[in-house]
Amino acid sequence: MTPLPSLLLEPLVRAALAEDLGPAGDATSRAVIPPGLRYAARLNTRAPGTVSGMQVAAMAFRLLDPALEVRTLRPDGSQVSAGETLMQIEGDAAAILSAERVALNFAGRLSGIATLTAAFVAATAGANARITCTRKTTPGLRLVEKQAVLDGGGSPHRYGLSDAILIKDNHIAAAGGIIPVLRAARAQAGHMRRVEIEVDTLDQLETVLATGGADVVLLDNMDTDTLARAVARVNGALVTEASGNMRLERIAEVTATGVDYISVGALTHSAPVLDLGLDF
Amino acid sequence: MTPLPSLLLEPLVRAALAEDLGPAGDATSRAVIPPGLRYAARLNTRAPGTVSGMQVAAMAFRLLDPALEVRTLRPDGSQVSAGETLMQIEGDAAAILSAERVALNFAGRLSGIATLTAAFVAATAGANARITCTRKTTPGLRLVEKQAVLDGGGSPHRYGLSDAILIKDNHIAAAGGIIPVLRAARAQAGHMRRVEIEVDTLDQLETVLATGGADVVLLDNMDTDTLARAVARVNGALVTEASGNMRLERIAEVTATGVDYISVGALTHSAPVLDLGLDF
Amino acid sequence: MTPLPSLLLEPLVRAALAEDLGPAGDATSRAVIPPGLRYAARLNTRAPGTVSGMQVAAMAFRLLDPALEVRTLRPDGSQVSAGETLMQIEGDAAAILSAERVALNFAGRLSGIATLTAAFVAATAGANARITCTRKTTPGLRLVEKQAVLDGGGSPHRYGLSDAILIKDNHIAAAGGIIPVLRAARAQAGHMRRVEIEVDTLDQLETVLATGGADVVLLDNMDTDTLARAVARVNGALVTEASGNMRLERIAEVTATGVDYISVGALTHSAPVLDLGLDF
Amino acid sequence: MTPLPSLLLEPLVRAALAEDLGPAGDATSRAVIPPGLRYAARLNTRAPGTVSGMQVAAMAFRLLDPALEVRTLRPDGSQVSAGETLMQIEGDAAAILSAERVALNFAGRLSGIATLTAAFVAATAGANARITCTRKTTPGLRLVEKQAVLDGGGSPHRYGLSDAILIKDNHIAAAGGIIPVLRAARAQAGHMRRVEIEVDTLDQLETVLATGGADVVLLDNMDTDTLARAVARVNGALVTEASGNMRLERIAEVTATGVDYISVGALTHSAPVLDLGLDF
Amino acid sequence: MTPLPSLLLEPLVRAALAEDLGPAGDATSRAVIPPGLRYAARLNTRAPGTVSGMQVAAMAFRLLDPALEVRTLRPDGSQVSAGETLMQIEGDAAAILSAERVALNFAGRLSGIATLTAAFVAATAGANARITCTRKTTPGLRLVEKQAVLDGGGSPHRYGLSDAILIKDNHIAAAGGIIPVLRAARAQAGHMRRVEIEVDTLDQLETVLATGGADVVLLDNMDTDTLARAVARVNGALVTEASGNMRLERIAEVTATGVDYISVGALTHSAPVLDLGLDF
Amino acid sequence: MTPLPSLLLEPLVRAALAEDLGPAGDATSRAVIPPGLRYAARLNTRAPGTVSGMQVAAMAFRLLDPALEVRTLRPDGSQVSAGETLMQIEGDAAAILSAERVALNFAGRLSGIATLTAAFVAATAGANARITCTRKTTPGLRLVEKQAVLDGGGSPHRYGLSDAILIKDNHIAAAGGIIPVLRAARAQAGHMRRVEIEVDTLDQLETVLATGGADVVLLDNMDTDTLARAVARVNGALVTEASGNMRLERIAEVTATGVDYISVGALTHSAPVLDLGLDF
Repeated sequence: MTPLPSLLLEPLVRAALAEDLGPAGDATSRAVIPPGLRYAARLNTRAPGTVSGMQVAAMAFRLLDPALEVRTLRPDGSQVSAGETLMQIEGDAAAILSAERVALNFAGRLSGIATLTAAFVAATAGANARITCTRKTTPGLRLVEKQAVLDGGGSPHRYGLSDAILIKDNHIAAAGGIIPVLRAARAQAGHMRRVEIEVDTLDQLETVLATGGADVVLLDNMDTDTLARAVARVNGALVTEASGNMRLERIAEVTATGVDYISVGALTHSAPVLDLGLDF
Repeated sequence: MTPLPSLLLEPLVRAALAEDLGPAGDATSRAVIPPGLRYAARLNTRAPGTVSGMQVAAMAFRLLDPALEVRTLRPDGSQVSAGETLMQIEGDAAAILSAERVALNFAGRLSGIATLTAAFVAATAGANARITCTRKTTPGLRLVEKQAVLDGGGSPHRYGLSDAILIKDNHIAAAGGIIPVLRAARAQAGHMRRVEIEVDTLDQLETVLATGGADVVLLDNMDTDTLARAVARVNGALVTEASGNMRLERIAEVTATGVDYISVGALTHSAPVLDLGLDF
Repeated sequence: MTPLPSLLLEPLVRAALAEDLGPAGDATSRAVIPPGLRYAARLNTRAPGTVSGMQVAAMAFRLLDPALEVRTLRPDGSQVSAGETLMQIEGDAAAILSAERVALNFAGRLSGIATLTAAFVAATAGANARITCTRKTTPGLRLVEKQAVLDGGGSPHRYGLSDAILIKDNHIAAAGGIIPVLRAARAQAGHMRRVEIEVDTLDQLETVLATGGADVVLLDNMDTDTLARAVARVNGALVTEASGNMRLERIAEVTATGVDYISVGALTHSAPVLDLGLDF
Repeated sequence: MTPLPSLLLEPLVRAALAEDLGPAGDATSRAVIPPGLRYAARLNTRAPGTVSGMQVAAMAFRLLDPALEVRTLRPDGSQVSAGETLMQIEGDAAAILSAERVALNFAGRLSGIATLTAAFVAATAGANARITCTRKTTPGLRLVEKQAVLDGGGSPHRYGLSDAILIKDNHIAAAGGIIPVLRAARAQAGHMRRVEIEVDTLDQLETVLATGGADVVLLDNMDTDTLARAVARVNGALVTEASGNMRLERIAEVTATGVDYISVGALTHSAPVLDLGLDF
Repeated sequence: MTPLPSLLLEPLVRAALAEDLGPAGDATSRAVIPPGLRYAARLNTRAPGTVSGMQVAAMAFRLLDPALEVRTLRPDGSQVSAGETLMQIEGDAAAILSAERVALNFAGRLSGIATLTAAFVAATAGANARITCTRKTTPGLRLVEKQAVLDGGGSPHRYGLSDAILIKDNHIAAAGGIIPVLRAARAQAGHMRRVEIEVDTLDQLETVLATGGADVVLLDNMDTDTLARAVARVNGALVTEASGNMRLERIAEVTATGVDYISVGALTHSAPVLDLGLDF
Repeated sequence: MTPLPSLLLEPLVRAALAEDLGPAGDATSRAVIPPGLRYAARLNTRAPGTVSGMQVAAMAFRLLDPALEVRTLRPDGSQVSAGETLMQIEGDAAAILSAERVALNFAGRLSGIATLTAAFVAATAGANARITCTRKTTPGLRLVEKQAVLDGGGSPHRYGLSDAILIKDNHIAAAGGIIPVLRAARAQAGHMRRVEIEVDTLDQLETVLATGGADVVLLDNMDTDTLARAVARVNGALVTEASGNMRLERIAEVTATGVDYISVGALTHSAPVLDLGLDF
């Protein structure tokens, strides 16, 4: 996949650097690093995982000092073991030290997401089901967190509230039931937006199938047996997505139901960071 | 503590809402929610923990629609059990549904940090040691994540690179050793910035004590025995901070060394979210 | 449809006011209008049409002076004749005069788009075909121009490059043909993005139908006969969209082909303004 | 004329690219264009006209990818026929395709304005009268639209509300008549701002001439006879500007009155785009 | 004069508050002021002068806490003695203390400018000459500093580089002399921009008068005798402005030359603050 | 000291250039300077002083035109005499002329601050006391004004409200006295923020010393005798800072008291500019 345009990432990285530099810059490096001192640093893994955030980390170093030479050895999406070098940075020592934490904060967090995603993907063991994420992302980081899911082998979901229609239980209740809600959605969706609707029971599923107008059905919080029956009932008439309580241990049996997509909020809201460090 | 001024939080919340609304707004609510429909919603816990992010969540609802009535029942810092109502929101149904995910993303993540912090604080069991965080925060969220640590009973650390001097191993190496680095730091620090220096060994600690110029010493990656000897050696001459591999299970024995501060990166980089939901 | 959230419109209107006020504010009103003078003004039509931009115009007055009383008489989407009052504004005379041009610039332009859209919609005379727009919008105004198309009775298209996949001739050429391009698109699209592909000939259409993976086919620059044959060939297997040279005079015969959507760039790139004025 | 500084144009172009890329970038190009594929493209005219927006279009390509080689063959202000190449772009295919629509949206719209302006200028046939524009510009695009008028051979008007004083009928009414309004305006204008006043009748013109304090008189909505008598009456004592209902067909006779400036709102509010395309 | 619109001032005041609050807010007030404590404060003068910045200072308090009650007793432009109360502020004590410094920094600096301007105006003793400022303003504060000059009784100059043409010695040299420079300027200026040209000698003045095309002549760095001869030579054919070394002591004799405008860079680049304080 | 990162300075310089260019760019240079004309310019001193703002001025030229060649001959912090060349700029004449005023406004103001600071530092004549500044800076320019104080040989103070605790008389009153205020401050300060408290009398000083919890004591508005007694009483137990009425003439006697820091608001709020000019 072509990388994201710098134009979209730059404001994010610039803001993160400004946040860490604070209003007056890096007091420590300014005070103690001899001006002009050059350094060579390596961004190394301390644990195995799947890499994400290299594009962002490289940009952090370059935005702080365009003269830094940054070389990415393992691009986003690579599977790596502990002790590997992901990136080499060479140039002004004070600049490298000032950008270090922001680069690591991005890369560690995003690689953590990619690594957890890869674990879920591995649990599907080549079956039909694809792993995808939700809108439970960190405020401000959706673009890079969704990219980290892709880097981990996951599949994209809608980006936010405007690019697809996803009707949840509260929408159904507010709109007066599945039939009117699907009609309203389809009438407004246009021909370029998909419509997905959440169902919690097989009865609701029957109504959705009978009403038409949906492209995707979200089978929410079902136990595995019910999920299997729902997928069988849909039988390819709609795309199926399973969500709710999708722990890693459960993915194999969920996959066995034949569901098309499994969405996992934890990929973005609770992934532990991948341990990375900068060594000089 | 007086709450943070809205002026500082508003850009953050506004950006998060814009990110989720996407370029064209909430397609689902616009399409299916009858205009003018009113709703009453409750932000409820699904698990016990310590609350943070209520000020931010309330702002998310109000920024989307100033006419929403938002009432916070359990302010930031409260300890809560599962099934408690933290906030009531009443008003336009479409507005509540459009702001819901942003409010939950903030509140879940920040309460997760506060809850993990509270667990670390509890592990100190009333001893001298205070729990504090690091700069390993989510890019863009430092202000609210640091506040979440306070809400969980933690103590503040420096905000970023400009408000205090913290000399790490790389700085020492680049500046040619502990003696020149401390002299340079003290000369530039002024009278309102504290100077902290990282040491990894007792030998380094001796040099720091002999040189002077530091206010705080960071005892990094020491085993508990070495840490105890270091704290005893300092004997109150400097403030002591322990860091590196500070797992929850180890806090009791670290506390027993008499160290003043224990800094824990995981509070902000790897805290799982607290499970919260919006019920109508 | 629920109105767009103010949060999305406000930056646009604020920027437009700042652009017109210039760096130093309204020199004329400041110099010659007696401070405190109150005025009542009416936003009136000088020609018949379909209204859009009332939400934006009202915001322009209120952002310049929150104390202005603004009352919208004919909401967005209304059909109006010449000489009707769309909005009443009452309050500080200098504030009304300073905001007047921005309010009119938005309302005139957006009502022009809505009016032209309504003419195209009328030309479909109740047939199956829906009128929609393209990405040929004014830089910076896509949100409100796309809304103006909806206000005129049009149907939404994708907002921009990220929310749906639309494969054009250049993409096909670059990717090595229809078959590989559709495979790549489907593999990356995920389950929430529609895939549309442009074809210029019936041969290309056959390949698209044989390959699968598309949801929508864009029948581009075809004469009406070819278009009719293409729609017949598709026979409901895909959604059909006609584009290219869609002049108003031609809409009736295009509609007669049974095509599902007709996209018209001129709606947003060449609509004349609707003549509106502010009378005191 | 020296070109506009990039510093002023860049925010505009950056915002337009971000608007079109959407929150997640160009899904189509990312999915289907092989990474690293290089392309050569030409920006060609499909109709004759006067060129504007080349500086902006070139910036759109370069901001998306600084490595693109962009060569402008026909600079802003050139008169061109159909089928001419205005610009050559070479480099990464995905980048060119992602920036294409924004570049065309700017260039088509601005060349449309320049082309319409040139038609009005041609209608003056070398007489004294100069064609100028108004503040009826697209919100957010005033800088480039006013430049497009210059590129078409037009003359500048005030940029916005702060750089000159233009007293309209509503100001006169609010300030209590022509005499007090001109006195107030002159007293506040300083020595570097011109003062213009609108008159609708020859009686008002007499009062303006008798009062003094104006540099320019705006002869608004007069029929050609009245206009001619007004210009004759002024006899060079003030600069004269005619406005209101200035259709292209009428310019020759308006020019014949000897008026100095003819301001035309349609130049910026209703110019159709010039048809341009990108060919590979 | 009508006050400046809040829309223009708000970004300036918001940025100043954010700058002073720093990334984490007012640590002192948050730590030590009991939440909910109410205060009444008065903004008092400690020295006599002319007031400016009251609108801005009031906005600083209100932006920090919209619930503060702010009452301006002496509006911008008032002449005040030491010990007067300019503004009363009542409400949350922590909010008042957090906004205090920003409010005082604006009001002290702007009142300093107004006070110095008033001293220059007083030195003209009712003669024809008006005092005006230059572009030697503080970066970022031009809007409010130019307003402060007006509050002190000064006259406006051009705001910046785009709203009028001022030809200096370097322009003349670059363009090849006074004759070509004036022709180029007049051709491009349009009918709403004034043209001013700097001359240093009486010879240059002759060329300017002979060439035509200028509205204003800037008599730069002339001794008082030469200035008097220059003004006499112009004899009302152009507006005259004197600049260069315009110390307060010299204003009386410069005024006596009959020059129309005296521009003084020191008004904005070197005015000492007016001593103001906040008393509780 | 390592220079400030461009990332922090760039928004400031960009905003200043945009402010001066105005909405439409430099009308004079665009009209009269032949496109492509090259110039060599020198930034020269017209008075002796200490240089600051060279990094900012160089950035102003480069941001307006990246092709300008800018060479700084006398870096920030240099002591210079009248008639020295600080910087050489070569390249497009129009670009140099358009950036000139912004570069001079920054450099003149900041060099003025550095020059005044250097005068205060010289008055301490090598004694223990260090000169420092306050938060009485120009809104928006704190970063560069605080840097100018360092360039003049001064010592840093806290940047703003969040990076250290400074308890003033109003805080003491609001919190109920010195004892509770110091306890609250110390409890919230954490281990990386210094606590300073203002005292006006020797009695208050006794309470501060007895209570503990402060790192620094601000001896405010004391006459020199009282100040001397206060410094003697502290006797190194706390860092001492003197403020209030610190005129240049008084610095020698204040220094003689042995106080550690002397803070001077006038450094940033009332320094006259250093006279600089650009010569071609």
